[in-house]
Amino acid sequence: MTFNFNPGPAALPKEVLEKVQAEFLDFRGVGYSIAEASHRSPEFKEVIDGAEALLRELLDIPAEYAVLFLQGGASSQFFMVPMNLLGTGGSADYADSGSWSVKAIKEAQRFGKVNVVASSKAENYTCIPEFDTADCDPNAAYLHITSNNTIAGTQYALFPRPPAGVPLITDASSDILSRRIELRDFGLIYAGAQKNLGPSGVTLVIIRKDLAERSPEKLPTMLNYNTHIEKESTFNTPPTFAIYMVNLVAEWVKAQGGLAAIEKLNNEKAAMLYAEIDADDFYRGSAKMPSRSKMNVCFNLATEELEQAFIAEAKKSGLIGLKGHRSVGGVRASIYNAMPLAGVRQLTDFMREFRRTRG
Amino acid sequence: MTFNFNPGPAALPKEVLEKVQAEFLDFRGVGYSIAEASHRSPEFKEVIDGAEALLRELLDIPAEYAVLFLQGGASSQFFMVPMNLLGTGGSADYADSGSWSVKAIKEAQRFGKVNVVASSKAENYTCIPEFDTADCDPNAAYLHITSNNTIAGTQYALFPRPPAGVPLITDASSDILSRRIELRDFGLIYAGAQKNLGPSGVTLVIIRKDLAERSPEKLPTMLNYNTHIEKESTFNTPPTFAIYMVNLVAEWVKAQGGLAAIEKLNNEKAAMLYAEIDADDFYRGSAKMPSRSKMNVCFNLATEELEQAFIAEAKKSGLIGLKGHRSVGGVRASIYNAMPLAGVRQLTDFMREFRRTRG
Repeated sequence: MTFNFNPGPAALPKEVLEKVQAEFLDFRGVGYSIAEASHRSPEFKEVIDGAEALLRELLDIPAEYAVLFLQGGASSQFFMVPMNLLGTGGSADYADSGSWSVKAIKEAQRFGKVNVVASSKAENYTCIPEFDTADCDPNAAYLHITSNNTIAGTQYALFPRPPAGVPLITDASSDILSRRIELRDFGLIYAGAQKNLGPSGVTLVIIRKDLAERSPEKLPTMLNYNTHIEKESTFNTPPTFAIYMVNLVAEWVKAQGGLAAIEKLNNEKAAMLYAEIDADDFYRGSAKMPSRSKMNVCFNLATEELEQAFIAEAKKSGLIGLKGHRSVGGVRASIYNAMPLAGVRQLTDFMREFRRTRG
Repeated sequence: MTFNFNPGPAALPKEVLEKVQAEFLDFRGVGYSIAEASHRSPEFKEVIDGAEALLRELLDIPAEYAVLFLQGGASSQFFMVPMNLLGTGGSADYADSGSWSVKAIKEAQRFGKVNVVASSKAENYTCIPEFDTADCDPNAAYLHITSNNTIAGTQYALFPRPPAGVPLITDASSDILSRRIELRDFGLIYAGAQKNLGPSGVTLVIIRKDLAERSPEKLPTMLNYNTHIEKESTFNTPPTFAIYMVNLVAEWVKAQGGLAAIEKLNNEKAAMLYAEIDADDFYRGSAKMPSRSKMNVCFNLATEELEQAFIAEAKKSGLIGLKGHRSVGGVRASIYNAMPLAGVRQLTDFMREFRRTRG
């Protein structure tokens, strides 16, 4: 059995893939593939409306928020957020928890003043930065965080509370739909689909609609959130097939019991893996304990050679994609929603056996 | 048999869909779906490199051009082209051949001066505009056209020649890969995939690399053509599944005999349909003869009621997606590459029968 631990694009639920395959040539009797359906067709309307309705249900998204399916990945939200929300002469607060935060900060600096109000750079990003609300600007346009950091394997267990009136914005690309959150605590959440939502090529944006009133009128039409809010993500042709798969993934999450059940399973998977890492000194967790990610479990072995042997032998055993990010090395097991407990068990079995023979 | 005449997303080659379905759960023995493959994996690298190589071969794209797979549709190129290429205080020439040109012009006006050097607006866009090179600005940043117009059903049979040194840019969303073109005549070609290239969600951009030297440094990273040229379309996670399908579609085009064979078949399909329209006055072609599109064949019947009856009865016979664009009404048969001759024959048979019973 092959298990895919890639950080994204990542494993998708087997049931979803089987459904896509089964109805790929003839979508529910219409006589053609969903990949061939017009974005104005009743069948696609049902798909996109269904995806939105399920996400609203799963995440308990209130009516005052819009749910958008955009393109360009989280990397495009790095600039769309400040371009739309920073305002002329405005300033925004950012927390720096690693590589993706740094990219978001870099793009925001093109549009206004950026205050880095918290950073774990000095700790090599092995933890979530400490927040002191006193450091936050009560007049900031927003506070931006990265809720899960795929490279260092850290994740916010609790979210910071910005000063009253300052909306919290998060890049949730790598942990959206993996746990329950209080959606009303956020002004905007964005997420590339390719970890927990579907294939790459669609980006979910959940935005409190009043924030979009800030968008400058002179923006290119496609870069203005209002365009997509008004046209319900079909101003132009959206990535129909990717949205169709998001709909199926959301159905699957609901069928698993929703976010409460998914969160429980994700906790169990992460606990099993960290327990194996912590069993002795053979494996060493990369991130500090309170900041450990339940999505990307990163660890080291005594030497680089041993790490390479681990990754290569694991691959031979059908455990794929365990190489750490090139900037930090080591081992990384990405265990998003679609990774079954059986996959984590096969990995911990392998870890035990590898320790026994090489330890 | 169902035939899908939708204007886009549109019919895809049956052989391509069958291949996608067959290898959907296990991509060529790697043990997982291509939708789950990392964009840094060897298997995806082979896919994206293969897609580029095939497009270079089919369109005879020289080395001094980059081939990019972006997101956001042609609608995003409407602003990316002027944002990157117009320069401060620059001006560009645009030809207005219909709704898509109008949108491109609107976005360009945000970045500089736009001269509409040719327009068929006065003819209700029923023809391609007349060009007089004397009207073109020899100092224009570029000349922009829309090579095929899906709404009015018009298409450039010959491309205008801008003044020396002025690059020609075309939105080729609805006729890319449908006929041979002299690629060196263009500075930049862009095309949303969802008509002739694959599913929606990926946009092909072919750009002469020296033009990208004009891009202002201050642009958001994702909006600068140089980012994608340097990183070969993988600066961030690209729409992997859509690119995979483009690769398969390009393989299919090659297997048909390349663009010469595709063009011949497209000519045959269009000729068959226009012959039926021109047989008497029951059907009336919407576009003027020399401007008729070989991709979108638009026609009217005597009354709106008759058109509605035609579209409804055609649908019952398995001929789907024949409704004209809501802005112009009438009937539109989109016959992109993937529409087989048999589909056009079934449509002309239906047209004859409809004329016989209702004429």
